[in-house]
Amino acid sequence: MSILITGAAGFIGSNLVENFLNEGKKVIGIDNFSRGEAKNISKFQSNPLFIFHEMDMNDYKNYHSIIKAESELEFIDEVWHMAANSDIPAGIKDASVDLKDTFMTTFYTLQIMQDFDIKFLSFASSSAIYGDLGEIKLVEDVGPLFPISNYGAMKLASEASISAAVESYLDAAYIFRFPNVVGVPATHGVILDFINKLKESPQNLKVLGDGTQQKSYLHINDLINAMIKIRNGSQKGINYYNIGAYDDDGIPVRDIANLVVERVSPKANINFGKGNKGWVGDVPKFKYSVDKLVSIGWQPNLNSIDAIKLAIDEIAHQENIK
Amino acid sequence: MSILITGAAGFIGSNLVENFLNEGKKVIGIDNFSRGEAKNISKFQSNPLFIFHEMDMNDYKNYHSIIKAESELEFIDEVWHMAANSDIPAGIKDASVDLKDTFMTTFYTLQIMQDFDIKFLSFASSSAIYGDLGEIKLVEDVGPLFPISNYGAMKLASEASISAAVESYLDAAYIFRFPNVVGVPATHGVILDFINKLKESPQNLKVLGDGTQQKSYLHINDLINAMIKIRNGSQKGINYYNIGAYDDDGIPVRDIANLVVERVSPKANINFGKGNKGWVGDVPKFKYSVDKLVSIGWQPNLNSIDAIKLAIDEIAHQENIK
Repeated sequence: MSILITGAAGFIGSNLVENFLNEGKKVIGIDNFSRGEAKNISKFQSNPLFIFHEMDMNDYKNYHSIIKAESELEFIDEVWHMAANSDIPAGIKDASVDLKDTFMTTFYTLQIMQDFDIKFLSFASSSAIYGDLGEIKLVEDVGPLFPISNYGAMKLASEASISAAVESYLDAAYIFRFPNVVGVPATHGVILDFINKLKESPQNLKVLGDGTQQKSYLHINDLINAMIKIRNGSQKGINYYNIGAYDDDGIPVRDIANLVVERVSPKANINFGKGNKGWVGDVPKFKYSVDKLVSIGWQPNLNSIDAIKLAIDEIAHQENIK
Repeated sequence: MSILITGAAGFIGSNLVENFLNEGKKVIGIDNFSRGEAKNISKFQSNPLFIFHEMDMNDYKNYHSIIKAESELEFIDEVWHMAANSDIPAGIKDASVDLKDTFMTTFYTLQIMQDFDIKFLSFASSSAIYGDLGEIKLVEDVGPLFPISNYGAMKLASEASISAAVESYLDAAYIFRFPNVVGVPATHGVILDFINKLKESPQNLKVLGDGTQQKSYLHINDLINAMIKIRNGSQKGINYYNIGAYDDDGIPVRDIANLVVERVSPKANINFGKGNKGWVGDVPKFKYSVDKLVSIGWQPNLNSIDAIKLAIDEIAHQENIK
C-alpha cells in the first residue's frame, strides 16, 4: 500500500514525504513545480520507497492515467492533499489562480479517490476559511464563514466538497486548518520575503502595513506532529481541527522584521507602510483556538516567537546567509 | 440602468423577471434552458423592457461579449444570480454538474461584475450549505458548515467567493438562503415529481423513503417578497438571511403524497420506500430559523401546508390536469 501526496515538492508536502519515508512507507509524490521546487525532494529521489511525478493536476486526463498506472502497481491507501496556491495576493488579483490551484486540485483529487476507491483523505485547509470575525474566538464550530480572500474561499469550497464526498463515498477525511507555518524548505511567506528584500537592498527593508499586524506562527515540526496525531486517531467521517500556536498572542510583523534584520543585515533601516492590513484579504489579527487539538493531547514545542526565531535561522541557512 | 437576471427562465428567475418588469425596470435575462424553459418567459417577450439571451454561462468568452454589448447600450446596475443546477441527486452522481452549473456560474458572474463595474449582487443560496446539523437550530451564524451534497458544497463555495469579492470590489451582496420553494412555473421538485409519476401510472405512486421526511416549504410569492425586502434594505457589505416558513414544523412527504393523490388521481395507492432519507445528500429534517428576517419585518403569508396545497393546485393546472 502507498500514500499519495499532492504538492509533494512544496513546503509542507516535502516535510510529509520525509516523515512517511522515515516511517518506512511507500510514497507517491506529485507536484507541478509552480511553488514547489525539485531541490526540495532531490534528497528522496534515491529512496526506492519514493516515486515522483511532475504533473499539472488540472489536466485531469493525465492525472487519472498516472494514478491508474500507479494503482496497478500498488494499491493507494490514502491521499494527503497539500497542493494549493500559497500566494494570497496573487489570487486576489486573479481569482482563477485559487480556482485552479486551490480548489480544482481538490475537486480532481476527489474524483481520483472515487475512481480508484481510495477511502482516506488528509487535507491542508486554512484559518483563512474563517474570514475576519474580529474579536470572536475562532473555535472550529464558529460561524458564519465569510472568507475575505479567494484563497480562503477556495479552501472553504474544498472543505465543502470533501464533506459531500464523505457523505457519499469516502470513509474519512482529516481536515487541518493551518495557521501561518514557518520553517524550511521555505517557498513563500513573510520571513523569506524579508530576506529576499534584504538581499536586494541590504540597507533598507520596506514593510507592507504599519507593522502592528499580529499573527501566531507554528513551526513545521509541530505542524507535522499535529497532523500525524489527528490522522492516527483514525476516526471515521469528517474530522476537523485548527492547528496553531497554543495560549500565545502571536508576534507583530514589526518584531519579525526586527529579528530578520538582526540576523541577516543588522545595519538595515526598516520602513513601515500605513494601515494594519498588508493587502486586501489579509486578516490583521485573530484569536485562533486550538483547544480541540490540545484536548486530544497535542501541544506545540515552540511558541510563535521561538518558531519565528528558529525559522529565521533555518531560512537564512537555506538562502546561504552565514 | 438595467438588472441582469441569471437563470431567468427558471422557476425563481422567471418570477423575478415578472416582478421587476411590473416595477417598470429594464431586465436582461439569461438562461441556458437546461432546467429553465422558453415557455416560462414567453409572456415577457413582447415587453420592450425585457431582453433575453440564451447562453451557456460556462462559455465565458460568449458571456463576456454579450454583457459587453448590453453594457454599451445601458449600464447594468445590479445582478440577480439565480442560475444553478436544481437536481441534487444528479450532482451527487456526477460532481461536475454542480461544479459547472452551481459554482462556475457564480465564479464567472463575479468576473463579469468586476469587468463591467457592477456593484450589487443578489444571490440564491440554500439551506443546503448547513449540511446535517441534527437538532441544532439553523440560525445564519451557526457552524460548522459541512454540506452533505455537492449542490450544498457549491452553494457554500459560491457564498465564499462572493464574500471575497465584497472585500475586494463589490459594494454589497444579498445572500438568500432558500428553503424548499413551491409554486409555478414548476421545473422540478417533489410535487411535479409526484404528478409526473401519476401521469405515467395513475394507479400507483412510489415514494422514495418512508414518507416521514419532514420539510418546510415556502410559496414563491412569499420568497419574492422576502428577497425584495432584503435587497431594498440596501445595506452595504455582505447581507445574509435564511428565508423560509416561520414558526412552522413543515410537512412530511407522506402528507404531500396524500394531497397530490387527492388532487390528481384519487384512486392511486401510495407505496413508500425505507429509511428517512430520499437519497444520499438529502437532509431528512432540520430546524430552520428565519428569526433574523422576521426581525426586519417580514413574515410569510402562507405556512408550509397552505403553500403546498396552493402549489399542488397551481402545478396541476400547469400540467393541464383539471
